[in-house]
Amino acid sequence: MLMRSPAETLTDQLANRFSERIRNRLLAPGSRLPSVRECARRHEVSPYTVVAAYDQLLAQGLIEARRNRGFFVRESRVDHRAEPTPSPRAVRPSLETRTRTPIDAATLIRGMFRQVHGQDGQMKAVPGMGVLPPGWLETPFMGAAVRRVTGTANLYSLSLQYGEPAGDTGLRRALSQKLAALEIEAAPDQIVTTVGATHALDIVCRTLLRPGDAVMVDEPGWAVEFARLTQMGMRILPVPRREDGPDLEVMTRYCEAYAPDQRPKLFVSVSVLHNPTGQSLSPSSAHRVLQLAQQHGFHVVEDDTYSHLAPEHATRMCSLDALQRTIYISGFAKILAPNWRVGYLAAAPHLVERFIDTKLLGTLTTPSLFEQALAHCLEQGQIRRHAERVRARLGAARARAVQLAVKAGCRFVTEPAGLFGWLDTGVDTDRLAQVMMDDGYLLAPGSLFHAVHQPSSLMRINFATTQDAGFWRDFERVRRQL
Amino acid sequence: MLMRSPAETLTDQLANRFSERIRNRLLAPGSRLPSVRECARRHEVSPYTVVAAYDQLLAQGLIEARRNRGFFVRESRVDHRAEPTPSPRAVRPSLETRTRTPIDAATLIRGMFRQVHGQDGQMKAVPGMGVLPPGWLETPFMGAAVRRVTGTANLYSLSLQYGEPAGDTGLRRALSQKLAALEIEAAPDQIVTTVGATHALDIVCRTLLRPGDAVMVDEPGWAVEFARLTQMGMRILPVPRREDGPDLEVMTRYCEAYAPDQRPKLFVSVSVLHNPTGQSLSPSSAHRVLQLAQQHGFHVVEDDTYSHLAPEHATRMCSLDALQRTIYISGFAKILAPNWRVGYLAAAPHLVERFIDTKLLGTLTTPSLFEQALAHCLEQGQIRRHAERVRARLGAARARAVQLAVKAGCRFVTEPAGLFGWLDTGVDTDRLAQVMMDDGYLLAPGSLFHAVHQPSSLMRINFATTQDAGFWRDFERVRRQL
Repeated sequence: MLMRSPAETLTDQLANRFSERIRNRLLAPGSRLPSVRECARRHEVSPYTVVAAYDQLLAQGLIEARRNRGFFVRESRVDHRAEPTPSPRAVRPSLETRTRTPIDAATLIRGMFRQVHGQDGQMKAVPGMGVLPPGWLETPFMGAAVRRVTGTANLYSLSLQYGEPAGDTGLRRALSQKLAALEIEAAPDQIVTTVGATHALDIVCRTLLRPGDAVMVDEPGWAVEFARLTQMGMRILPVPRREDGPDLEVMTRYCEAYAPDQRPKLFVSVSVLHNPTGQSLSPSSAHRVLQLAQQHGFHVVEDDTYSHLAPEHATRMCSLDALQRTIYISGFAKILAPNWRVGYLAAAPHLVERFIDTKLLGTLTTPSLFEQALAHCLEQGQIRRHAERVRARLGAARARAVQLAVKAGCRFVTEPAGLFGWLDTGVDTDRLAQVMMDDGYLLAPGSLFHAVHQPSSLMRINFATTQDAGFWRDFERVRRQL
Repeated sequence: MLMRSPAETLTDQLANRFSERIRNRLLAPGSRLPSVRECARRHEVSPYTVVAAYDQLLAQGLIEARRNRGFFVRESRVDHRAEPTPSPRAVRPSLETRTRTPIDAATLIRGMFRQVHGQDGQMKAVPGMGVLPPGWLETPFMGAAVRRVTGTANLYSLSLQYGEPAGDTGLRRALSQKLAALEIEAAPDQIVTTVGATHALDIVCRTLLRPGDAVMVDEPGWAVEFARLTQMGMRILPVPRREDGPDLEVMTRYCEAYAPDQRPKLFVSVSVLHNPTGQSLSPSSAHRVLQLAQQHGFHVVEDDTYSHLAPEHATRMCSLDALQRTIYISGFAKILAPNWRVGYLAAAPHLVERFIDTKLLGTLTTPSLFEQALAHCLEQGQIRRHAERVRARLGAARARAVQLAVKAGCRFVTEPAGLFGWLDTGVDTDRLAQVMMDDGYLLAPGSLFHAVHQPSSLMRINFATTQDAGFWRDFERVRRQL
């Protein structure tokens, strides 16, 4: 709530609040500001105060007025980033016409890094967050593992040379064993460490694709993946996600509709505990995807980011395929330490060599300290036991969040599982998210999970950060107002 | 030297030595193996032993015989990496016809990460290395800085959340002050941390360029830069490096020769202690480059990787230009800890926002631990004092290496300065490098430093790793044989 203060006028307070959100991309370029009347009502100030605040924002060049339509966040710069290179014969999905959502991918990601303060100045839980809250990740063994590898002699030995291009040998050995437990056979030299799973996805795409190539992705799917592929100039082919896996008929159509050189080169999929639906691939679906890949010559990237939250016996395509056409990607951000930025990929030997080259050209090597500490935690079974505890805790949290959500009028469109719930609110979640931000809550509206923007009444919740009945009360109040 | 051993036949030993080098890319695809006769003489074995060893390599698919031409390392895989997207109106430099050198960029980089063993099984100094030897980088303060930031509470606080997208705030504050000492004004929020300077270069190119764009680079210049730009599908426009800076006439010609949309978008240059020549930009040259950039609308990336080895008063384009059209890049691999992989960029605010987006899509954030440790070392003045000591030590090493090199028949083609010497051996350095590898020395032949392969009698030496008179004796012997 805005408070009269001798230090700052109400106008300044309001203008500062908006300008901060615009600069932090919590209000994306192109999104519309509330009308003067609505804003005045919401912030309990006079319309005059709002007009004066908007004037400040206009003067700062942060917003623009469009005749008869209201105020909009300025598209402050021409975006020169690599756009899709037009490929004359390609049937292109209509990405060019994609409009920005009020909360876009950049907003959601940046929101993950910044605490949002509500009108009451309080930090709130972040229902749209993609990771577990810090408190859930505290482990007694992390400090010990770090101290173990930072003794003077070892610190010198790991710091003063670039290190192995493929990543720390000890970690790759430990990961090879971890993968064996998932029935994925990968020798240590088939594994490459990366700066988180995101970097692994980036390396694979940069190596296997060139601008204009077609890539099949899960829809709904992860906004950052769409944004990266778009930035790289790829053609995104969305594959609807069904209960037991991707829609195989749509995939077949993509493979058969185009001229051979325009066919999909890659299918990128979160097969287990899919983001945002929580669904996992069935064995028969996995088998059929791999048959299709074989028949049409595309590679499959299996993004197993949520691996630690899933049972080991879940079906992985990389297990069936034995890393022939499949590339396995995972990391530790969802279970141990998001900031350590340790991810990895596993693939066939001839691909691994090419991935290492791409890694070298982009970052040379990756820091060994965390890789060695993680190797130790893995070898001692600490991460496995920690993951068991987290799964149990998440199970309880999920049960409570589901109850609260249903009581608040939501309906789960997929069976709740893993970290995320995918639910129908009955109202437009773009608007919902924008209003809730005033109360200090960052939501993940359904439109974010589509390659082409479309209004949606769905949203993703993080079960661990929606335990608070207060949030659900606020949520229900706003939902009813819309 | 190969030794008769009950465990391994001479044939096996020879085959293993070659196969290891091929797998480690120390012998690049397409490079020619010594003739049977030459190999027998060099390894003091019978021609029969060599033929049997080559047969093993043929059977393993590592080499191939070409009629009447000898044995060659197989181009084991078709390279599917993104190739330059042909841009119909562009006048393209003849990169397509670029041939692989016996030691290519990948070989040199990988060589930096692997100890090379000579025929006598001994590890040798690495004259072609791009960093200081580990012993030079040992500092009493590194361990203390790491322990300081890894206390349990701080370790949790830095590990359990993704961290700031732009990088640790404390480090960016310290870097802002460090840049001020170079007379470059950059507020902390104009700075973005990266996974080493390489990653900063990668982020800038991915953000500002699209495939087919023209980029001016120093020639001679750094092979990894050429390789990355080539992989990204850029048109490389080499700008000859003169004593006082880039050849401005050539730059002007590039800017005027093409249609407006085909003109260079970027000039990437190591302005101070240029790699490999050691030359630094003069103030008037810097001024004229900036005038040209202004006139023709290109950005300038100033890669100040060797900043710690240079005097603070050296001319930087970013200082003259006040980060308008210039982007500053540097890191700590050359002075403190190559494996920490901490680099950074500084740029105008509107560019910084775009660079952060590219960073997010590629790696999300970067690890805070090293960033916080470095911030502490910078604030305490430890790195500045350490750099002073290293510069003094390097000065003495340089004097000695210059003497040894001249005595071994070399001539410096540029005034020795900084870390690298650029010298003329009078013989083909590709062949020299290949033969010297048998003695366990990795050299950096001149051909590596050209965007388009051309035979060269030049080579780059690292002053710190060419202190050993034994190396120079071996070098002189081989040089005379060629």
